[in-house]
Amino acid sequence: MGPVRLLLLVAVAALAAAVGEAVYIPYNTSAGVVAGKLNVHVVPHTHDDVGWLKTVDQYYVGSNNSIQGACVQNVLDSLIPALLKDENRKFIYVEQAFFQRWWRNQNDMIKDTVKGLIDAGRLELINGGMCMHDEAAVHYIDMIDQTTLGHRFIKEEFGQIPRIGWQIDPFGHSAVQAYLLGAEVGFDAFYFFRIDYQDRDTRKGTKELEVVWRGSKTLGSSADIFAGIFPKNYEPPPGGFYFEVDDDSPVVQDDPLLFDYNVEERVNDFVAAALAQDGRVNALYSTPSIYTDAKYAANEPWPLKTNDFFPYADNPNAYWTGYFTSRPALKRYVRMMSGYYLAARQLEFFKGRHKSGLTTNSLGDALALAQHHDAVTGTEKQHVANDYAKRLSIGYTQAQELVSTSLGCLTESGSKSRCSSPTTKFSECLLLNITYCPSSEMDFSNGKSLVVLVYNSLGWKREDVIRIPVFSDSIVVHDSEGREIESQLLPIADASLNLRDKHVKAYLGTSPHANPKYWLAFSVSVPPLGFNTYLVSNTKKSAFVSSKSTIYSTQGSANSNLQVGQGHLKLQYSATGSLYSDSKTRIEANFEQKYKYYIGQDGNGSDPQASGAYIFRPNGTVPIKNGGQITRVYKEKDYVETEFIVGPIPTDDGNGKEIATEIITNMATNKTFYTDSSGRDFIKRIRDYRSEWKIDVHQPIAGNYYPVNLGIYVEDGSKELSVLVDRSVGGSSIKDGQIELMLHRRLLHDDGRGVAEALNETVCVDSQCEGLVIEGKYYLKFDPQGEGAKWRRTFGQEIYSPLLLAFSEQDGGNWVNSHSPKFYAMDPTYSLPDNVALLTLQELEDGNVLLRFAHLYEAGEHKDLSSLASVDLKKVFPNNKIDKIVETSLSANQERAAMEKKRLKWKVKGAPVKENVVRGGPVDSSKLIVELGPMEIRTFILSFDDDIRGKQLL
Amino acid sequence: MGPVRLLLLVAVAALAAAVGEAVYIPYNTSAGVVAGKLNVHVVPHTHDDVGWLKTVDQYYVGSNNSIQGACVQNVLDSLIPALLKDENRKFIYVEQAFFQRWWRNQNDMIKDTVKGLIDAGRLELINGGMCMHDEAAVHYIDMIDQTTLGHRFIKEEFGQIPRIGWQIDPFGHSAVQAYLLGAEVGFDAFYFFRIDYQDRDTRKGTKELEVVWRGSKTLGSSADIFAGIFPKNYEPPPGGFYFEVDDDSPVVQDDPLLFDYNVEERVNDFVAAALAQDGRVNALYSTPSIYTDAKYAANEPWPLKTNDFFPYADNPNAYWTGYFTSRPALKRYVRMMSGYYLAARQLEFFKGRHKSGLTTNSLGDALALAQHHDAVTGTEKQHVANDYAKRLSIGYTQAQELVSTSLGCLTESGSKSRCSSPTTKFSECLLLNITYCPSSEMDFSNGKSLVVLVYNSLGWKREDVIRIPVFSDSIVVHDSEGREIESQLLPIADASLNLRDKHVKAYLGTSPHANPKYWLAFSVSVPPLGFNTYLVSNTKKSAFVSSKSTIYSTQGSANSNLQVGQGHLKLQYSATGSLYSDSKTRIEANFEQKYKYYIGQDGNGSDPQASGAYIFRPNGTVPIKNGGQITRVYKEKDYVETEFIVGPIPTDDGNGKEIATEIITNMATNKTFYTDSSGRDFIKRIRDYRSEWKIDVHQPIAGNYYPVNLGIYVEDGSKELSVLVDRSVGGSSIKDGQIELMLHRRLLHDDGRGVAEALNETVCVDSQCEGLVIEGKYYLKFDPQGEGAKWRRTFGQEIYSPLLLAFSEQDGGNWVNSHSPKFYAMDPTYSLPDNVALLTLQELEDGNVLLRFAHLYEAGEHKDLSSLASVDLKKVFPNNKIDKIVETSLSANQERAAMEKKRLKWKVKGAPVKENVVRGGPVDSSKLIVELGPMEIRTFILSFDDDIRGKQLL
Repeated sequence: MGPVRLLLLVAVAALAAAVGEAVYIPYNTSAGVVAGKLNVHVVPHTHDDVGWLKTVDQYYVGSNNSIQGACVQNVLDSLIPALLKDENRKFIYVEQAFFQRWWRNQNDMIKDTVKGLIDAGRLELINGGMCMHDEAAVHYIDMIDQTTLGHRFIKEEFGQIPRIGWQIDPFGHSAVQAYLLGAEVGFDAFYFFRIDYQDRDTRKGTKELEVVWRGSKTLGSSADIFAGIFPKNYEPPPGGFYFEVDDDSPVVQDDPLLFDYNVEERVNDFVAAALAQDGRVNALYSTPSIYTDAKYAANEPWPLKTNDFFPYADNPNAYWTGYFTSRPALKRYVRMMSGYYLAARQLEFFKGRHKSGLTTNSLGDALALAQHHDAVTGTEKQHVANDYAKRLSIGYTQAQELVSTSLGCLTESGSKSRCSSPTTKFSECLLLNITYCPSSEMDFSNGKSLVVLVYNSLGWKREDVIRIPVFSDSIVVHDSEGREIESQLLPIADASLNLRDKHVKAYLGTSPHANPKYWLAFSVSVPPLGFNTYLVSNTKKSAFVSSKSTIYSTQGSANSNLQVGQGHLKLQYSATGSLYSDSKTRIEANFEQKYKYYIGQDGNGSDPQASGAYIFRPNGTVPIKNGGQITRVYKEKDYVETEFIVGPIPTDDGNGKEIATEIITNMATNKTFYTDSSGRDFIKRIRDYRSEWKIDVHQPIAGNYYPVNLGIYVEDGSKELSVLVDRSVGGSSIKDGQIELMLHRRLLHDDGRGVAEALNETVCVDSQCEGLVIEGKYYLKFDPQGEGAKWRRTFGQEIYSPLLLAFSEQDGGNWVNSHSPKFYAMDPTYSLPDNVALLTLQELEDGNVLLRFAHLYEAGEHKDLSSLASVDLKKVFPNNKIDKIVETSLSANQERAAMEKKRLKWKVKGAPVKENVVRGGPVDSSKLIVELGPMEIRTFILSFDDDIRGKQLL
Repeated sequence: MGPVRLLLLVAVAALAAAVGEAVYIPYNTSAGVVAGKLNVHVVPHTHDDVGWLKTVDQYYVGSNNSIQGACVQNVLDSLIPALLKDENRKFIYVEQAFFQRWWRNQNDMIKDTVKGLIDAGRLELINGGMCMHDEAAVHYIDMIDQTTLGHRFIKEEFGQIPRIGWQIDPFGHSAVQAYLLGAEVGFDAFYFFRIDYQDRDTRKGTKELEVVWRGSKTLGSSADIFAGIFPKNYEPPPGGFYFEVDDDSPVVQDDPLLFDYNVEERVNDFVAAALAQDGRVNALYSTPSIYTDAKYAANEPWPLKTNDFFPYADNPNAYWTGYFTSRPALKRYVRMMSGYYLAARQLEFFKGRHKSGLTTNSLGDALALAQHHDAVTGTEKQHVANDYAKRLSIGYTQAQELVSTSLGCLTESGSKSRCSSPTTKFSECLLLNITYCPSSEMDFSNGKSLVVLVYNSLGWKREDVIRIPVFSDSIVVHDSEGREIESQLLPIADASLNLRDKHVKAYLGTSPHANPKYWLAFSVSVPPLGFNTYLVSNTKKSAFVSSKSTIYSTQGSANSNLQVGQGHLKLQYSATGSLYSDSKTRIEANFEQKYKYYIGQDGNGSDPQASGAYIFRPNGTVPIKNGGQITRVYKEKDYVETEFIVGPIPTDDGNGKEIATEIITNMATNKTFYTDSSGRDFIKRIRDYRSEWKIDVHQPIAGNYYPVNLGIYVEDGSKELSVLVDRSVGGSSIKDGQIELMLHRRLLHDDGRGVAEALNETVCVDSQCEGLVIEGKYYLKFDPQGEGAKWRRTFGQEIYSPLLLAFSEQDGGNWVNSHSPKFYAMDPTYSLPDNVALLTLQELEDGNVLLRFAHLYEAGEHKDLSSLASVDLKKVFPNNKIDKIVETSLSANQERAAMEKKRLKWKVKGAPVKENVVRGGPVDSSKLIVELGPMEIRTFILSFDDDIRGKQLL
């Protein structure tokens, strides 16, 4: 976001004319870089949000212009003739979501013209993802997916490979963006502008706005990238070269026959601004690629930058750390869909693509848009947030049909190749967060049974407890071998039923006719990349309703002196706090779980900076006595699950509020905590401190908040406290021994960064609106010092990829006899190593398969697991013979080897650091073993022998 | 003006796609008109003001967008590819001022493409003038000039002749527009929308929105035109097909892959609106030409419309009659420049074009723009009014140089052909209205003399009194034969000196060093189309300063019982009024001249319609006790000249005010008065009555106001009272026997028609601002019944074309010996007939000459002068042999004969009326006599034998 979004091409054309076409003063812009002069690279570009004040389609077609006069198809339409007018002109285009919309409406003549311009390097498709994704509230898997979508289109349609990262607007920059979405996709450089104002000032002084950014400790210099930080904004330094509909920047008026001809004046402004830097000026039309090559040609060493650029502040009281949490429901929706998309593509592959016409494309597109830096960030207008949710819903509905079909085929035939429309239908329950599941709320009294198919998209076998709402209290659960298994019926809390009533009405328009009485809970065991099936049916025997069970609910801190936990982990509640004791790890720790709210600064009066969608600016902290939460300790599990229900946040006192939970311990953590970078690497954070520059602390809370996608932890030398999250949130350790997460925000003022709407989400029933309620979970665990990583990585992956529950009905017959109750995609004896996750298994349009594995550990993170791992592809694909396999760049648009070869290697100032980067070796096509070093992600395209399509892989 | 101004082509393209390109619903738009169906002609167009909220150049280049997001070059740029996309698409373009700006910046490829589109009738240049001129506050000569400029460009560049009038925005429509700027330029039809809402409602009921408009009583059916009035607005009836940047009309979203696809919905809206009228629908891309041809092909008779469409009201309290007077200073400036332009082109021709590089083009362009319906109307923002004035000033300065050069040549050599840079320089005094004339304020004591060259651009000899300010009281005037002639020195009124002080400071930045003491007045006699020279010098003898002279000043009504006038006309002032007595005509009439102001409705509270730039809505009338005026009766003249100085209008009581003067008599005028149509035909007005429809009177004052460009008169059967004006004003006869003119308006509220600025003109000196002062003149005369026309026509022409005064200095030598003091362009024995005016004498770029004569009388207007007149071209051009002469259409873009032949002849309902239209016959190329029937204007292009250039005339 930014005060100005669309730089219309007409303006660029005017600028062009200003420099190239003036009648009286012919400026020469045809030359390239000239040695000995200050070469000013004029980069005409447009910044087109794929949704912000208007929806992506409104921006594209130019509708809803009363909100903002912006029409992207006009930009693209006018681009072409403007480029054709002068062969020196160049333009870069970023957002493939818009470009693809435009491209498919062009005729062959325009397409040929555009291809010519692209081939000539005059129109450069840069960055190349569907959107310019956010870097704080996004998960790295989503970043990869949305970038891959855009990059593969560019490759297929134009044969081009984007060279440059161009993240000029996101509100801070992540290490993962630099090394993974930068270096590992093959980018030579990465340009952006939003870094902390103090950091920028420091860098201006030390001339360190251009650096080599080493975002990964583990991959070190092998994933370096050249990073250029704009000195001011994404307009040129002199200002006023910023051309938008209704913007009051003076256009370059280059017709000397008209009034207000101002070419000399504008050129003088431009030259003066350039001269303020150095020597003689040579201005040229350019692109970031040309600029990057010029920098590289200088063959100079650059300062080294590590870690990331969070948090971002644009002035002392404006930390952009509110958006780490803004719109937590949307953030959760995005995260759920992300995991679902991963699973759905697996099932799409197992069944075989194109067999039914159903695809995951729509979900993929919706997810790609949702990664935009005004989407998952929560910084868009409400109607635009609704549009993203609507797209996810449509995408999910289509993907769910595909999943149902695939599961139907897999249960009916066990073979994907002969199935396209199975008779068995599966439904799902997306609304378990509001205790609503029509499938499980069936009447068991008539002899019908509920079939619960549990799919596991992870490469490891999983044991887990599932919970579904039921009406009956006479229920029995059988596994697929017909064995009755232990189950419990747990009373549903009133708070949950109230949530259910209200939100079912809000969703469906009518209230549910009756409320289920219980959660049915039972343990399941599911093979890696496979499913297992359970049957829930009526039982004659009187029900055993647990009043004190392995799953114990306690609300808030009302019950004191209560012990929870039937396994080795126990929680002992007392009036003064809780005692965590794990008999297995011998960890004991006192802790308190509390809630509090920050009062959002209202921005009235003389100090106008309000807390808002972007910015977190607390004006006081107030403890909350009785927060709504359910804490669970599962018998077989060694962590604490906390389910919270936050909201409606009251605002009748005229104050916006931002709700945080905190876990307080007496650990001596020395101002230090760790948060993940886009869900991947953990980065060390020190309170009121930045590792590469001296910070002047104005906002001791907001200025210490960081994005949390996977988790946050602290350590004191003897133990670690880790907290993992179910979505992106903002988090910090504001005091030693403490961790806090901001869970929800409801604010009454706009924070003045353009969205012009207060972040005040409501849910309306019968036109009565209340503040939005957020349900969610976080998980905490104490570990002995140095041993927390295993849980964070393994369980973190399980949070990202929850078990997929699909429901069907058995009416009389015997399901197990007529269906395959179990499915193993891999060799039944095989599972992926503990330190490897399958990020992508997807059949592409051409029949080839996209495969992506990630090593989950950083170097040194775990004594055993931070080692080279191996995946045996023959066992991953036991039923298919791999015919060809090619390793590619992360975004699968070029061969990895070619990428390595051509990617620019940048020199770093100072003495070289000794490194021991471990990466897997080449894949031998006969052995088919994929090795992965720590933090390595390897991407492959492969084809199978039994597949006649798509023998050319790239 | 209107709430929406720019219909961007992108929108039109979207509409196009909506009907032609939708994937799911292929609509056929390739067909033409289909018989038996309701043929809906979809006419994509844009309405681009050549100045309104922004200046013409700001609109063109798209600057100053914070006021309005509008960029005409974008419209034109995007037009071409949109038309190329689908050969069925069509577009019309109107404003040549914009089109020419764009055209000269296009390369040959684009030009060829555009020419192809124009040749194919797909891009139609319609209306074709430089702007869409106003029809109330414009003079017909300006309408002709600005239309000729546009039409000749279109002819020369594209070989096209616009067929259709397209005046969709002006605020009411004049008879002159219909018959003269419509039929006489060869238009087949004329489309517009702003007519009185009651008139429109009536016409909807009687199905008379399409009519044959007979605008001229005199020319009758020979100047009929088909006129189509839009039923609602200039958007299609269903509404919402109105596409502008930032407008909230829904765009047609025709990409089914995007959200909010609405093609069906929009097409259904469209079809429903069409079906509401009749039968089956056939929609086609069309132009007004195609529509007109379809109407004509129906071969049906149409209702007859006579007179005009003034005044315009869009609701009961909103009469658009304020703009008849708004910005009276700009209106006067335009009128002065109009007369000057006519004279300057004559002098340009006498000297020979291209001899010095100086041209009148800049003044012609500035005047053309000033005719726009938000220019001379006074309905633009202040900064835009300043822009028009600046353009006129630049144009005048260039034309004045040309005039000086031409006069220099004519005085030095008497022959145009050998002169390009004469040594004699002439200056002019444009600021005599503030008593400022540096040329005449010279020091005569050192023996220098002031040379006063007096040029007469009329075709008749003129005797007149000229007045110039002087310092000296010892002055003598000699004529060109060396004879001393009678002169008077008249004290300059204090009010005039105050005006001078303030405005000279405002113009020059410094106050004049001293004030002149006297007006020097003397009679001059000047040949037709020629000049005479007078010398003003020092005299030794003691000055005779008249205290009671032929020119007598009296201020206001302070002096009672005073007699003015030394000729046959005398005014006798008394406490109860004035007696007008003319011993020659034996007319005696009592009359009072008074001032009053209307309180401008402020639009606050429940009744929000304010009086403003467009709308006159008085809220009470207040008499003014002591108006600032000077009444003059010239010895040899038979009319009363009243010079008024109005302003600064005080507003410290919080009220805007509109100042009117009224002339009150006891004449029994039976609610009837006459006002001119665009300075030409007089139209009968009856108070509270419309001749063709029944009016419901809500605004008895504002609703009876009419535009006055030439004059207004009343009659009572025995005498006529005529009042002539020096600029366009609003006028009426609110009571029997009374005439009133609104002279100035200063208002504090916007009237809600888009300009969004109160009409509150000020003049600032040293950043102290006061309300604008208006100086001007009106002229009144009583005539015996039936005899007023001669004065109105002859003196009206003299007001339009005042004597041009050019000043030089004689230092010692004898001017008369070294210069030609007299010049006769025509045969010295010849003058044009009393009923004929020379409208245009102009050498064109190609060396040919454009010549236009106008008969000044309507049929029956004058017993002698409403007859066929003859002009002898051999005597008009005694020094040149006419080689070729072609009569053309009014706008000189086609041969008159061809135009007559092809122009559509429309049938009128009802029995044919007996007509006796007199028009001049063809010009015999040997006799070279041009005959003109009443109200006839004939236009010719001719070339001379002595001129080797441009033998092809058209």
